Amino acid sequence: MDEQNPASPTDEQTAADPSRSDQPTVDQLTVDQLSEGQLLARIFPRLRASASALIGPGDDAAVLTAPDGRVVISTDTLVQDQDFRLLWNNGCSSGGFEVGWKAAAQNLSDINAMGAVATGMVVSLTLPGATPVAWAEGLAEGLSQAISALGASGCGVVGGDLSGGREISVTVTVLGDLARRAPVLRSGAEPGDQLAIAGRLGWAAAGWALLESGIPFAALSPAEQRLIEAFHCPRPPLPAGPLAAASGAKAMLDISDGLIRDAGRLAGSSGVRIDLDARVLAGFREPLEAAASRLGASALDWVLGGGEDYGLLSAFDGDAQLPHGFAAIGSILSKKDGTAPESAVTVSGRHSDTVGWDHFAD
Amino acid sequence: MDEQNPASPTDEQTAADPSRSDQPTVDQLTVDQLSEGQLLARIFPRLRASASALIGPGDDAAVLTAPDGRVVISTDTLVQDQDFRLLWNNGCSSGGFEVGWKAAAQNLSDINAMGAVATGMVVSLTLPGATPVAWAEGLAEGLSQAISALGASGCGVVGGDLSGGREISVTVTVLGDLARRAPVLRSGAEPGDQLAIAGRLGWAAAGWALLESGIPFAALSPAEQRLIEAFHCPRPPLPAGPLAAASGAKAMLDISDGLIRDAGRLAGSSGVRIDLDARVLAGFREPLEAAASRLGASALDWVLGGGEDYGLLSAFDGDAQLPHGFAAIGSILSKKDGTAPESAVTVSGRHSDTVGWDHFAD
Repeated sequence: MDEQNPASPTDEQTAADPSRSDQPTVDQLTVDQLSEGQLLARIFPRLRASASALIGPGDDAAVLTAPDGRVVISTDTLVQDQDFRLLWNNGCSSGGFEVGWKAAAQNLSDINAMGAVATGMVVSLTLPGATPVAWAEGLAEGLSQAISALGASGCGVVGGDLSGGREISVTVTVLGDLARRAPVLRSGAEPGDQLAIAGRLGWAAAGWALLESGIPFAALSPAEQRLIEAFHCPRPPLPAGPLAAASGAKAMLDISDGLIRDAGRLAGSSGVRIDLDARVLAGFREPLEAAASRLGASALDWVLGGGEDYGLLSAFDGDAQLPHGFAAIGSILSKKDGTAPESAVTVSGRHSDTVGWDHFAD
Repeated sequence: MDEQNPASPTDEQTAADPSRSDQPTVDQLTVDQLSEGQLLARIFPRLRASASALIGPGDDAAVLTAPDGRVVISTDTLVQDQDFRLLWNNGCSSGGFEVGWKAAAQNLSDINAMGAVATGMVVSLTLPGATPVAWAEGLAEGLSQAISALGASGCGVVGGDLSGGREISVTVTVLGDLARRAPVLRSGAEPGDQLAIAGRLGWAAAGWALLESGIPFAALSPAEQRLIEAFHCPRPPLPAGPLAAASGAKAMLDISDGLIRDAGRLAGSSGVRIDLDARVLAGFREPLEAAASRLGASALDWVLGGGEDYGLLSAFDGDAQLPHGFAAIGSILSKKDGTAPESAVTVSGRHSDTVGWDHFAD
């Protein structure tokens, strides 16, 4: 409604790094040079379709199958300079591909954490007028390739919305199907249960620290470059959620804000305490030690406090055999009277003061 | 993940107009003074619950019933300074209440336009740190009151996401149930059908023009003030969508970008032409004439090109009795060979060069 006041370009918006080989920059067209219809015509062919779509993009709304009479829904937003940077301190850029991948991955993870299988997503995209069209095309490709590569084979993009704005923002809303099973909530853990994890810990936090460092990408080891890749293109263990549900998981959530913080949420919802096993956690430090040493950081802090790897934290009966992909990481204990939620998680009996991220507080 | 780089306040973010009686400003707390959990604790109690929610807010995802084994989904975003202003030229402000109302209304309208009934929505909210907490609380109240007042009694807010950013952005994704009927698409109109409309035309465009004028709110007539209200708190005719579907509507969409443009979309999807009746359109001009006269604008331009009133445009058989709330507004004709989509809509046989809004093109 507001063409009189088009978004003005900012430094960030023109800072895309042409040295990144995975980001097409031969096409210098920007989105304000196209009509909405023309831009959609560039994006649509790159979007993966959903096998569950009865009515796909192009009408007022999409229609998806909901085979068991229920539908799981979650939404998450990535905002420029909050969740990603077009130009990082080390010279790397978050291209559309990486942002699209991450937007898909973090939403697919929420469906996974309920024990459900994703069926479709809608994408609302806000772009400053100076955004390269190639960036928007890359976003569509990143969304689609993440869905494929992570194994959400029944999922695709069924609709969306396009807006102008002063900063790039991507909101994905994803739907899922529970396959006639009960959803696995955060609230079902009981004393005596074993706590198990599937997926990575601390990789994205380490990658983020490397991106924010002054160390050029080319000066990093292949292992360190993989940590940056883990931040940009996280790999939530998608088969693990429905598998855990089918294997009797009693409580589950995905680790988006850090192990300690998210374990605290599970503990709070279930009314229990959690004790993490320090020896098991030590094993998660190993792939991070070189980067931690280079940056003078603590690999254990990344393991305990780092989010955005989207591993799954699940409670199973104490004598249950853990499903494939899960490793025991701690125990569910009775809550002591008067215990504050902040102290509901210990590491081999000791309090950890490492906490995850909060988008507003400092 | 990015607390090192909190959003900085801007002029717009501090420009909320304290003279607006419906906007609480006694509480000067801003969102960066609260943790995410504290802010959610202020917002949640103001959100209307959904009767269809099996699992509501607070877990990794929500679970809604999908009674007929299908689910309708649509998403739309409102962005500060694109879709609303915190301070308009005439001194009015878009409070959280108004933005929340509009975000709910435009999404409910998309479900309505499929002939479906809304069951639940998720809300992703991006707020600069300097946003007053009261603005966010108002947004929750606006969302909830729009759902109630528009008659979406089975709908509520089942989840969401909260981010920081440099500008306010609200993305609502809404789900709906088709009640075992086929969805009404844009593509079903046939030559010989009558075209009918439910709802308003041009009110929001007139209200927007008044907001952008230099005329203070208090200097406007009550009728003109109602046009501003129509822009801020639009009233899509929600019962009309399912009623039209049950009454045999063959094609339908909601008018979000202007009558000519959206009629053109229906014509294009259906492979037909549309002729609008100039005499009927004249009747829609009447409530806008005083404002048009004051601003030196054209009431007919608002009727033909103004969006965001979210009326419904529907095609019915030529001899069908129109359901309650619909008025005949034109005819569906055969497409001439080689007719471009732009000329697919005429007004009493004559081409109109008034078009609606495009978020990127000028």
